Amino acid sequence: MSSSECAIRQFDIVGDSVLRPDAPSKLTGQARYVNDLSFPGMLHAAVTRSTMAKAKIKRIDTSRAKAMPGVHAVLTWEDVPSDNCIPLVSCDLPLLAKDQVDYYGEGIALVAAETVEQAQAAARAVVVEYEELSPVLTIEEGFAQEWFLTQFHLDEDGVDEEFANPDNLITEDTYITGYQEHAYLETNGALVMPDNYGGYIAFSSMQCPFYVQKGVAHILSVDYQKVRAVQTVTGGGFGGKEDAPSTPACMAAVLCYHTQRPVKLILSREEDFDSMSKRHPSKVVFKSAVDRKTGLIKAVDVLHLINCGAYLTLSSIVMWRGFLHAVGPYKVPCARVHSYGVGTNTVPNGAFRGFGQPQVCFVDETHWNQVAEKLRIDPLEFRRRNMLHVGDTTVNGQYLEESVGLEQILDKVEAEIEYDKWKDRPQDTGRYRQGVGISLAYYGVSLGANGGALNNGSCNVVIAADGSVVIGVGTVEMGQGMITVLSQIAAETLKCPLDRINFISAETGMVPEGGPTVASRTTMITGRAVVEACANLRRRLDEFQGERCLEWNELVRACWVAGVQLSEAGWVVAPKCHFDAKTGKGSSYPVYTWCANAAKVTVDTYTGEVHLDKFVSGNEVGKVINPSLCEGQAQGGALQGIGYTLYEDMQIRNGRILNNNLSTYIIPTAMDVPDIVPVFAEEPYSWGPYGAKGFGETPMVPAAPAISQAVYKAIGVRFTELPLTPEKVWKALHTGENHG
Amino acid sequence: MSSSECAIRQFDIVGDSVLRPDAPSKLTGQARYVNDLSFPGMLHAAVTRSTMAKAKIKRIDTSRAKAMPGVHAVLTWEDVPSDNCIPLVSCDLPLLAKDQVDYYGEGIALVAAETVEQAQAAARAVVVEYEELSPVLTIEEGFAQEWFLTQFHLDEDGVDEEFANPDNLITEDTYITGYQEHAYLETNGALVMPDNYGGYIAFSSMQCPFYVQKGVAHILSVDYQKVRAVQTVTGGGFGGKEDAPSTPACMAAVLCYHTQRPVKLILSREEDFDSMSKRHPSKVVFKSAVDRKTGLIKAVDVLHLINCGAYLTLSSIVMWRGFLHAVGPYKVPCARVHSYGVGTNTVPNGAFRGFGQPQVCFVDETHWNQVAEKLRIDPLEFRRRNMLHVGDTTVNGQYLEESVGLEQILDKVEAEIEYDKWKDRPQDTGRYRQGVGISLAYYGVSLGANGGALNNGSCNVVIAADGSVVIGVGTVEMGQGMITVLSQIAAETLKCPLDRINFISAETGMVPEGGPTVASRTTMITGRAVVEACANLRRRLDEFQGERCLEWNELVRACWVAGVQLSEAGWVVAPKCHFDAKTGKGSSYPVYTWCANAAKVTVDTYTGEVHLDKFVSGNEVGKVINPSLCEGQAQGGALQGIGYTLYEDMQIRNGRILNNNLSTYIIPTAMDVPDIVPVFAEEPYSWGPYGAKGFGETPMVPAAPAISQAVYKAIGVRFTELPLTPEKVWKALHTGENHG
Repeated sequence: MSSSECAIRQFDIVGDSVLRPDAPSKLTGQARYVNDLSFPGMLHAAVTRSTMAKAKIKRIDTSRAKAMPGVHAVLTWEDVPSDNCIPLVSCDLPLLAKDQVDYYGEGIALVAAETVEQAQAAARAVVVEYEELSPVLTIEEGFAQEWFLTQFHLDEDGVDEEFANPDNLITEDTYITGYQEHAYLETNGALVMPDNYGGYIAFSSMQCPFYVQKGVAHILSVDYQKVRAVQTVTGGGFGGKEDAPSTPACMAAVLCYHTQRPVKLILSREEDFDSMSKRHPSKVVFKSAVDRKTGLIKAVDVLHLINCGAYLTLSSIVMWRGFLHAVGPYKVPCARVHSYGVGTNTVPNGAFRGFGQPQVCFVDETHWNQVAEKLRIDPLEFRRRNMLHVGDTTVNGQYLEESVGLEQILDKVEAEIEYDKWKDRPQDTGRYRQGVGISLAYYGVSLGANGGALNNGSCNVVIAADGSVVIGVGTVEMGQGMITVLSQIAAETLKCPLDRINFISAETGMVPEGGPTVASRTTMITGRAVVEACANLRRRLDEFQGERCLEWNELVRACWVAGVQLSEAGWVVAPKCHFDAKTGKGSSYPVYTWCANAAKVTVDTYTGEVHLDKFVSGNEVGKVINPSLCEGQAQGGALQGIGYTLYEDMQIRNGRILNNNLSTYIIPTAMDVPDIVPVFAEEPYSWGPYGAKGFGETPMVPAAPAISQAVYKAIGVRFTELPLTPEKVWKALHTGENHG
Repeated sequence: MSSSECAIRQFDIVGDSVLRPDAPSKLTGQARYVNDLSFPGMLHAAVTRSTMAKAKIKRIDTSRAKAMPGVHAVLTWEDVPSDNCIPLVSCDLPLLAKDQVDYYGEGIALVAAETVEQAQAAARAVVVEYEELSPVLTIEEGFAQEWFLTQFHLDEDGVDEEFANPDNLITEDTYITGYQEHAYLETNGALVMPDNYGGYIAFSSMQCPFYVQKGVAHILSVDYQKVRAVQTVTGGGFGGKEDAPSTPACMAAVLCYHTQRPVKLILSREEDFDSMSKRHPSKVVFKSAVDRKTGLIKAVDVLHLINCGAYLTLSSIVMWRGFLHAVGPYKVPCARVHSYGVGTNTVPNGAFRGFGQPQVCFVDETHWNQVAEKLRIDPLEFRRRNMLHVGDTTVNGQYLEESVGLEQILDKVEAEIEYDKWKDRPQDTGRYRQGVGISLAYYGVSLGANGGALNNGSCNVVIAADGSVVIGVGTVEMGQGMITVLSQIAAETLKCPLDRINFISAETGMVPEGGPTVASRTTMITGRAVVEACANLRRRLDEFQGERCLEWNELVRACWVAGVQLSEAGWVVAPKCHFDAKTGKGSSYPVYTWCANAAKVTVDTYTGEVHLDKFVSGNEVGKVINPSLCEGQAQGGALQGIGYTLYEDMQIRNGRILNNNLSTYIIPTAMDVPDIVPVFAEEPYSWGPYGAKGFGETPMVPAAPAISQAVYKAIGVRFTELPLTPEKVWKALHTGENHG
């Protein structure tokens, strides 16, 4: 075989449903989560938390707690060796309340003791004297008081003219979405220990090792690289381990700093519910002008409010994503979008799969269904007239150069749900009534313009003399399949057998900051860094072998003996994006993933229960690296979307979550899983690794409006508020009320 | 400041006695050694060992042991999932004895149990039925039986002619050196646990993570990169943690493989003495022909025997070093050197600081003192006539191009010990008698020609956005000061403050195989890899700043924001060496370190005790990166050499070490530390980082002959056998016997 033949020998690992190397240890119970770690001399931590939504702290008395058996430290804000704030988008979130609490569950004092029970007893024994203040509890109150933590505005000329034009159909409605809890199997937790060089090792269940590194470094006032953040096996993230883990890690770190012992803090389920981030509730007033004759969208005017809770944390970037995607994947020539992040005295909300998009997607898709109905156009027909294609420009002014697969995926989903059979079907009348709904969405992949340098990617690839490979990256495996997908990309690029690729759990110190494991950016951006590094290595191997064509093991061995460098520090700069906050416009994301979802439901009119007969999750992802994992993501995302739509109903009274555990906060169980059919289309993205774009979040985004539309088609009740619990459906059916 | 001024701004971190970042955790007891680690579910291991020097194994009965409380596994060679051998130079050392034991202390069965006590009880309960065989116990017996595990030969023409030439003084004597135990504070031990991806993590107190990685991978029949070898804080190595740690790591690994639990094996001091490597005893017959008129060496004929113990392990390369350095740092135009590694039924000997050189140095330096005396030339004068300079060729044919500082260092040592006052001083006659001796040595730095690709160097340098730096390397900090020295080199090259540099403990997976932490190669070779990586990074930073001249933090921050890659996989190929085993010649090492030692002793003729009044350790090291650490190495090495010379006297009967603990095996204590004066010269080596060569081992090498010569000058008794215990000195004084 000649060298050139050798070089082009086909590999086909990318595109194969290879098995996950991380699955066996999880299935057998061998996987070590952070709570499975302990070290000699380790102390256990507990937190004294606010029992008020808003209050002045008049006194914190730790004396009794300090005297309790096994207690090594009881600390308050005064003991934090820094400015006591956790750096996220800004540095506004206090680690421990100083003279005021602003939400129920806010940390006030930290305890480290020899056992968990001793720590918890001492945390309870800390006396906090409050002077209760009047809290802001709802988005309406916060909005009325203009407590805005963040805002974005798109304000184009001509909106009012379109609304005044009598040729246009004007539609306006108000839409409300509720909280959603991540409900990861493993609660947040961290273990921080002193290293051997005056620094710290922070083990954490997390998505973003570099966030925890920076958080702990900031809170302890040490250099970033004095902290080594090591990801432990992560039992689910869904965004809930993006920003949130910095808090328990910083808490454990401060206790470690004072005791110089390893300290472990594991949140109970209730504590995790009370104090960790959730999906932002939202309230949106959406008004549109649509040409009555052509059915083309002429203008929109959106007031988009999200409930941030008491601190900003990540809300500005969550809201930014909602702001940019607020009108859906349609040509909207003229728009006004005002987004406000409203403060309330509730637990700060943060990242959650979809990141501000499921809310706006429910709104725009429901709204366009309402518009289509008024126009007497089939909702799909309405969408086909308005949807984005290559060469179009998004509402925020991004010209779409390539990889726009919305129409392709809609065609596939429409066929899969057999929409033709359903679209003109008259409404059922018996106890059980069926309907079908379809929704569209798009998803700007990766952090985009707002991420800046955080959106770059890194890896470290090392080949051993025996031809086995180990890769370290800064992004994490959290169940989504990163290790599998990146292994496929690496093997394909190196042209080596897949089983020679190994991964090290993510930790800082091995690679430069390769950004967070969020925004469906890992396959695309870390994947591209892996391609770059492996291609460089392969080039070096090929240069060494010249005209020969050695088998992998032989080639590596020969290179090793010859002193060829078998390591590569991979680095990739994400495609440049820009966004102008003044105009609200820009090329905000490198590329988009395009989605169509379809739901077929049966509503039990006696009980109000909505049963999903079939759910089609369609996604155009550029390239399906691993079909089985993509199917898993589609199914898991759809199910989480179904939970968001039908089951998950967080109840808050006086700022306190009433159903703060998985017995009372209902998520779908195995019994509720419908026939979820994943459908894919591939419009390769030229920059993406093997054409791949991001995908993890998109299956969650358009679930709710598809289901809600199916319910509408089944029973004739249009819901503009999530969730559609049986109680609400029953009530709507029997009273006509459809706002819960 | 212009860019060029900016670029040449002077740093002076190299050359400073900066403090060790690893010292505080050791001083405060915070440092975590392998025995300070534990993991939930961890089992403790114990080993059933041979109680015979040589025997057939007729039966191993593990049934009683298996039934004992807390026992999870009792394993024999049959349970090893591979060929049951530990790969070192060859793969000859069995992990567990199969049908024969070949030395006392050899492993036969492994136990894992819930407590150490349970494991040890079960290990004792394993029944081994032996049929005793006749062992080979001495170097003489092994030589007579021609049990040669390795051999090297230099056999030049003309040797016999020189010995027949009547103008030449012919001198011949036989020299014997004993065992030496490393006596590290921390015994060998390992903890092996399953990782989350079907592989293993091997924590170990070790010098060579890649050896342990390969050993465990081999013994478990898995890919190298399926094993992540992580160095724990290492409480002394001195070579005793080069080859030796592979055995306990492989033992723990096999138990881990079968139990799929973390398994920890920590050797007791006695077990460590019995079964771990030591310095090879040697017997050398050294014959020389020296021109009577000029005092120039004409030829030597050396028969060089070392006692390998029962298996080869590293003996071939230990012996190679002795073979190459056998005649001392002198011009020897014509030589015959026959080196044999002799097998005996004793514990395999291995790496130890100096690596075969302290033995031959004692021999050649004692011999040349004898020759000088016969010629009535002062021994220093004899050395000055024969010593190597730039432009000379070593006995094995290496042309010395640069960095030969032997004369410079001898001058300094001669002055420091005030040799002039002592050289012609008549022998004392009272109870206390004083004398001074000087010895020379050279040390081929790094693995040289025999190391091949193992001699290359690697590192991984990552700069965080805040300007702090973290470096990972494959060589280890074992107390010698690697982290400090490499931090200085990195800071100097990056032009950043020293306190911004951080290190991660060595582990495989972060870097390609950067060779073992041996052969005084770390400063020179890993240091050079650090220079390469940091210089590349600095170049990238400088290119970015162009004509500007930003402060470190500002520059790094700006680069980070701009997406400049802030990581570098460092790699350096060691200077090419070659050695022809057929001729025994070649350019075996990249460069040499040059040494002169001086000892001033007082001998108590009543007790035979030798008291060291002053010891001067002179070393020409190319560049002193950290004066304080170099002084520490010189002092520690000298003291270990003093122990080797005067105190350490391992007693073996029937292949069993009688004094197998630190109560009965005597090493120098703080009370025995003389006034050790380190003296340095610098002849920069052009390839070395900032001119540095290797140094850690050299202070150990020439101690014995300097002390022995001082004793000779004090009491007139010439010792040709080590050690010079008080008993032997007394006996020699009072009986005339000087061979122990």
